[in-house]
Order: sequence, then structure tokens, then C-alpha cells
Amino acid sequence: MMIGADETPSTQPVSAWWRQKPGEMSVMWTVRVVGLGVVALSFSLELLVWLHRRFRPGRILNEVLFFPSEIACVEHIFTPTSSHSCVCSLPHGVETSFSRLLRHIMSASSSLDLCVFAFSNMDLCRAVLALHRKGVTIRVLTDKDYAAITGSQIGVLRKAGICVRCDVSSVYMHHKFAVMDGRLLISGSLNWTLTAVQSNMENILVTEEPDLVQPFIKEFHKLWVCNDPARYHCSSD
Amino acid sequence: MMIGADETPSTQPVSAWWRQKPGEMSVMWTVRVVGLGVVALSFSLELLVWLHRRFRPGRILNEVLFFPSEIACVEHIFTPTSSHSCVCSLPHGVETSFSRLLRHIMSASSSLDLCVFAFSNMDLCRAVLALHRKGVTIRVLTDKDYAAITGSQIGVLRKAGICVRCDVSSVYMHHKFAVMDGRLLISGSLNWTLTAVQSNMENILVTEEPDLVQPFIKEFHKLWVCNDPARYHCSSD
Repeated sequence: MMIGADETPSTQPVSAWWRQKPGEMSVMWTVRVVGLGVVALSFSLELLVWLHRRFRPGRILNEVLFFPSEIACVEHIFTPTSSHSCVCSLPHGVETSFSRLLRHIMSASSSLDLCVFAFSNMDLCRAVLALHRKGVTIRVLTDKDYAAITGSQIGVLRKAGICVRCDVSSVYMHHKFAVMDGRLLISGSLNWTLTAVQSNMENILVTEEPDLVQPFIKEFHKLWVCNDPARYHCSSD
Repeated sequence: MMIGADETPSTQPVSAWWRQKPGEMSVMWTVRVVGLGVVALSFSLELLVWLHRRFRPGRILNEVLFFPSEIACVEHIFTPTSSHSCVCSLPHGVETSFSRLLRHIMSASSSLDLCVFAFSNMDLCRAVLALHRKGVTIRVLTDKDYAAITGSQIGVLRKAGICVRCDVSSVYMHHKFAVMDGRLLISGSLNWTLTAVQSNMENILVTEEPDLVQPFIKEFHKLWVCNDPARYHCSSD
């Protein structure tokens, strides 16, 4: 019993033991400071997350390119080691809409799905061939009439072993889009021709926005299946 | 000393520095609980912010439309009161890519900047005229050659008093985009023709993404100024 009585002061309730133990009061201040610190930390984290989303290097890419492009040498895009050795007469070291477009195409590391009405631009053909050599899986869907015009690069792609299908169901297969690695969409008014790149007023959107990319992936798949030479009959759904 | 010795059994500790102050032990647990609570709160806030961004009503619009469109009656878009009274032979009450496109165009309340290569679709012309009658400021930029082809609606727009300019600087003014109210962009492969809407494989992106809309606003302004008949000389910048 004596022991019980002696113990009483040390088991005093919370409200009471502040009064008598100033050391513990500083503990409660520590609790408050720590609590405030954690709240401040959570707000800081929130701010950092926002800043990261706003300015992070990996932010969703959205870019618009307008044409006609300035005409400049693009050799360094195909052979980076030759950036200082090219002796052609075109301006060097100039970033243009066309060089941006080439870079985006060349960024593909696993797949390129291309759906284009007219394809006669030799630099763009060279980019596709370079990807093919790198082992990128390439599928090309094009218009049946324009595939056969003079200067078309479709035959070159086929000869290189790239799988090409021609649309047979519509008046024109008028798309001009490409999806790289199932994540990056290139789409706009620009056909893959020299005139489009160097002479016309044209635009291209480059985006990683999933809400925009995913429908194009789905559409490409639909068109690819519909235009399988083994089964040329598809519904329009 | 006796008291201290007697206290020992009742304050048996978890680790060394708890031994003599059991009150502080509960304080430290409070610190931990408060800390965990604040961490949980910060995660909850993070989740709420994410959910808000993901599902907020004012979320940025991103939509893709593919063509050819199903053919259906669009009378109800022009005269909503007639939705049940139209007696034409086309299917009614069907939402199609074309009806979506018309709705987006008709959503303009203050301005429509249209930059289109070929414009011969009479329903699209009707939509532009309806906006003009509503007081929407309309500017149309088109290709000089295609403005004069049979079936072009450019003359109809001009006769209605809409300001139209023709591009004279390029081989083709091949754009097909529109910006509504400086916030909504429509752009793609689709010319404003009947064949494009009903027969071709085409696409249109509809987006409010500022990174995509703003460059088109700037480009339209540049082209509009460049093709002012009062000053037909522009640099290519």
C-alpha cells in the first residue's frame, strides 16, 4: 500500500502534471513545433509536386510546328558525327520545323505506326529507313492511288522490307499522322512531300497527351486490320 | 531513494530513457500519432488535388474525331426547336463525328478564326453564317486557287459580309484549322468539303490545351496580317 501511495505523484493525470514539471512543458512545445514543422513540410511537398508537374523535364510534350520550313542541312540528324564535316551548300546548325519533325520521328525506339496520304519526301524516307535498320517495328498505311505516283517513297520502304498496306475502302486515305512508341503523336495538315515541307503553309501538332494519342492508336489498329490484304472486307465502324 | 526504488517496478521501461518519466512516453507517442496523422493528411490532400484535376468539370477538352462520318440529319443543330419535326429521310437523333464538329464550331460566342484550304461543305458554311448572324466576329483565310473552284462557299461568305482573305504567298495554303473564342482549336487533315466529311479517311483534333492553341492563334494573326490586300509583302518569319 505504501508503494501505491508513493507512486501517486508520478501517475498524475495529464492536466495536472504540467503544473509541476516544467521539463514536460517544453516537451509539449516540442510536440507543437514538430507538428507545425510536419504541416509546413506537407505544404512544401505539395508545392514541390506542383512545381515538378509544371516545370519537370518530363512534362507532357505539346508542340506545334509550322511550315514551310526554312531550308537547312539535316545531315547531322542522320549522322551526328558529321555535324562539323558536312560540306553541302545549305545553312548548317539551324534548327527548323523540319529538323524538329525529323528529330521527333527519329526518337522512336520500339515502334512507328505511320498513316500518310502522300509520301515522297526523301529525307523523311531516310528517317524511316534508319529506324527500320535500328530494329524499330514499322507499319505504314497509305493511299492506294498516291502510293503509285512518281517520286513516291512507298516502293523504297517496301523494298527495304517494311510492312506497307494500302487503303482500299475510301475515296482518299487522307490522314497524315504517325505514332511513335505508342506515346507520341504527330498529326496535322502536312503530307510527307517536299512541297509540303518547303513550299506550303502547313502545320503539325506533336503531343504526348494520352487523350489525343490513344484514339489515333485505336484508329491505326482498326485501319491496319481493315486493310489486311488477306481480308479486305471491313465494316465502317 | 526508497521512493525511487519502490517506483521502479511500476514504471518499467521500453528503453533506457523512458525509465524515469512515464508521462513523456505518452507524449512521444502523441508526437508519432500527430506526425502520422499529418502525413496521412498530406497524402489525402495530394489525392484530392489529383482527383480534382482528373475529374473537375472544367477539365481541358481534348477530343479526336474520325471521318468519314456517318450520314445523319443535322437540322437540330441549327434549329434546336425542330429536333422532332424534321421530316428528311436521313437518320435522326444520331451523334456523329460531323455533328460533333458542327457543335464545336457553333459553340463560338465571340470569335471564329478559320484557316482552311478548301471550303465547299454547305452545312459547315451554314454554321459559319449562323455564327455571323449571332454577331460572332469571323475571319476566314483560304487558298487563292481553291477559293474559286466550283462549289466553293467562299463567295457565299463574302456576300454575307464575312471578311475573307486569300493566301498569295505559298504554293498551297494547306492548313485546315479553326480557333473559336481564342480558346478552342480544331485542326487536322479534314478540308471543309463534302467528300472529306462523308467519303475520306480523315481526322480532327479538338483541344483547349493552351500549349497547342496559342501557336495557332499566333500563326493565324501572322497570316492574316501578311495577307492583308493593302500590304501583300511579308517576310517568311
